[in-house]
Amino acid sequence: MPYPEEAEGFQVDGPNSFTQFHKRHFKLKPFGDYDVDIKIEACGICGSDVHTISGGWGEQKFPLCVGHEIVGRAIRVGPKVTLIKEGERVGVGAQSYSCGKCKQCRNDNETYCQVEPMDTYGSKWADSGIVSQGGYSSHVRTHEHWVFPIPDALETNSVAPMLCAGLTAYSPLVRNGAGPGKKVGIVGLGGIGHFGIMFAKALGAETWAISRSRAKEADALKLGADGYIATAEEGWEKEHLCSFDLIINCANSSEGFDLARYLSMMDVHGRWISVGLPEEEGQVIKAQNLISNGVLIGASHLGSRREMLDMLQLAADQGLKGWVEEIAIGEEGLKEAMLRMKKGDVHYRFTLTGYEKIFG
Amino acid sequence: MPYPEEAEGFQVDGPNSFTQFHKRHFKLKPFGDYDVDIKIEACGICGSDVHTISGGWGEQKFPLCVGHEIVGRAIRVGPKVTLIKEGERVGVGAQSYSCGKCKQCRNDNETYCQVEPMDTYGSKWADSGIVSQGGYSSHVRTHEHWVFPIPDALETNSVAPMLCAGLTAYSPLVRNGAGPGKKVGIVGLGGIGHFGIMFAKALGAETWAISRSRAKEADALKLGADGYIATAEEGWEKEHLCSFDLIINCANSSEGFDLARYLSMMDVHGRWISVGLPEEEGQVIKAQNLISNGVLIGASHLGSRREMLDMLQLAADQGLKGWVEEIAIGEEGLKEAMLRMKKGDVHYRFTLTGYEKIFG
Repeated sequence: MPYPEEAEGFQVDGPNSFTQFHKRHFKLKPFGDYDVDIKIEACGICGSDVHTISGGWGEQKFPLCVGHEIVGRAIRVGPKVTLIKEGERVGVGAQSYSCGKCKQCRNDNETYCQVEPMDTYGSKWADSGIVSQGGYSSHVRTHEHWVFPIPDALETNSVAPMLCAGLTAYSPLVRNGAGPGKKVGIVGLGGIGHFGIMFAKALGAETWAISRSRAKEADALKLGADGYIATAEEGWEKEHLCSFDLIINCANSSEGFDLARYLSMMDVHGRWISVGLPEEEGQVIKAQNLISNGVLIGASHLGSRREMLDMLQLAADQGLKGWVEEIAIGEEGLKEAMLRMKKGDVHYRFTLTGYEKIFG
Repeated sequence: MPYPEEAEGFQVDGPNSFTQFHKRHFKLKPFGDYDVDIKIEACGICGSDVHTISGGWGEQKFPLCVGHEIVGRAIRVGPKVTLIKEGERVGVGAQSYSCGKCKQCRNDNETYCQVEPMDTYGSKWADSGIVSQGGYSSHVRTHEHWVFPIPDALETNSVAPMLCAGLTAYSPLVRNGAGPGKKVGIVGLGGIGHFGIMFAKALGAETWAISRSRAKEADALKLGADGYIATAEEGWEKEHLCSFDLIINCANSSEGFDLARYLSMMDVHGRWISVGLPEEEGQVIKAQNLISNGVLIGASHLGSRREMLDMLQLAADQGLKGWVEEIAIGEEGLKEAMLRMKKGDVHYRFTLTGYEKIFG
């Protein structure tokens, strides 16, 4: 099989036509010594994909092929690659490069690299000027640090969303001490949140799902939640005042969100960590809202290579898998997926399949 | 000397006349087994005093005698008191009681007690209905847990402001790891901030003062700062991107505060801790502002008994003292002090003196 010079994938031309996908060829970056070429077999559909192509996060580099929950096969490895073997099943997440040398990169904080961070799609390579294209496509070319072997125990279609959504939930859990003896809440039961419940429980924490209505209660309990809080009910926070060590806020929107009530549930110096990036204007925070329990508010961005490997191993060891709906890649499937994502109508992630049929 | 049945002090009747102090007698709470009666010798004037009596923090219980940076002599101790000896020189800070039994009280987080927290002034005792009155007065009666022996090496007038301002700066420094190898910033060089610089340096951190103009630079360096950032200067944050482990925000106002620029100076998972309680409406925070370095935003409330004792010992060991302007207690002195506090015209704290003359 000849090595790919370019990839073929589904691009969108701008926010006004974000449900119209066009199958096109585009150039890959020049192959480097540490690069791995991956023939894609499946890709999750992340909320970021929709925010990006529908204009919610501001200007982007169109035409653009999104997708950053990629699983495929390593079909070629550069001469200096040591982390990945040719033929191995691998994954790629939302980031595809960082400088590798700065303080952050040297301390397992490479997703916070400020020197040369590259997203898997929509970032411009400094040397070639090529804009990175994502996994709604036949191939990606990625530096080995950002390519992750997938343990055999995990299925391609259900592990795909772990590459972004899963890691986004996992990293703040382990960085903020989720484990035995800790009470952890997960706000928002969607793509990220369903992994949050699963991993918080797997790490040994007392795990609470926090959602608006009771509609997702049965799912939450099946995912491993020990308890469920429905914020549409009166006095929902009263039983939990000053008790949570950590809450991961996975909500996709901040509209109508009464942050002070959530924060009242935090134990002293508890942590409220947001991983969603709502499109709205943000929330007004007064020191007065934080002072009664000294709560810390933060945000978290993806997770390190080390955390990715740990997460995949934890999933393999405990038999954890994403709850996915499979949808065939193609103009029709992508359009349907985008329309349903906009409505939040998915339980709890789409995985694009049928790559062989479309790309050969 | 007979024990006091009541105290005499200077009260204000409401925010519209907050510079008019009236010398009056008022009842002390009933003397309890763990209580200590203190004859006051000096009291610092805290920003809280001004916020409280001028109406900036909302409704209060008037008439009110404020003051919670108290130093005096223990003249009577209850039959169960073991922490304080009669005749000892002692201090009292901003809090005067907590339940002593809850999770927070049992874990050196008694200033975050949600069950029965009592401020040194303006809180109502549940049993007697008496409203606590502060240190612009002859005596206070306080549970021994909230009374602190003052090391001999410290002078009464310069240690007084440590009882609130000092502890408010010290607690978040030690709780958030200020020490050798850490880069710590102190925003706002006022009553709290000047202690922040002093203690951050004493704890071994690389210490930066952050102020609007260069007006206070010489003072900051004298207090121990290793460096100085003037935020009125263009590009002030550029040299410090992603470098601070901890910044204590002591600013008294949030007007015109471009939080995102400050946060850009924080290292990954650095902490931005506010100790001031500005009267304004708060700041809009988007997860987007926090995500590039995963910074944590928090607030801190006073400090534990253990921290108070540690701080006083550190000050005694290293010869640290508050920079105070002394002012004689009385209608005139208090009025002048309030007017100057409103203008921020004090370097860096007032201590009320002359108690013996006024109260005998």
